[in-house]
Amino acid sequence: MKDIAINFGKKVRARRKSLGISQDKLALKANIDRSYAGRVERGEVNITLEKAYALAEILDCNIRELLP
Amino acid sequence: MKDIAINFGKKVRARRKSLGISQDKLALKANIDRSYAGRVERGEVNITLEKAYALAEILDCNIRELLP
Repeated sequence: MKDIAINFGKKVRARRKSLGISQDKLALKANIDRSYAGRVERGEVNITLEKAYALAEILDCNIRELLP
Repeated sequence: MKDIAINFGKKVRARRKSLGISQDKLALKANIDRSYAGRVERGEVNITLEKAYALAEILDCNIRELLP
């Protein structure tokens, strides 16, 4: 199950980088702590569906693209 | 954002019923409380991605089918 968070985080990071957005900016837009954003990208957080949707919106993609 | 949980819950319920599984059985298989299962289906829970995947697995479907 840990793989889910890790793969989700990798996809978030890849998508963020492809958009040229910093982790700081992503965190700010998502209204989350920068350290939390880092933990999400490293797969250390069991993120909620709601927050996953919020990240997808900020990353201008469908949540399905971020899912493992 | 509340809509996400509500729509997810509706889809979980619809899928569960289409499989003829009781809420009790779903809860048991997912290793969650029956009352929690009910709350998920009513959209009262901000479910984690991990738990959403677990439910999809039990409901023998891809998580994408359960997402709003």
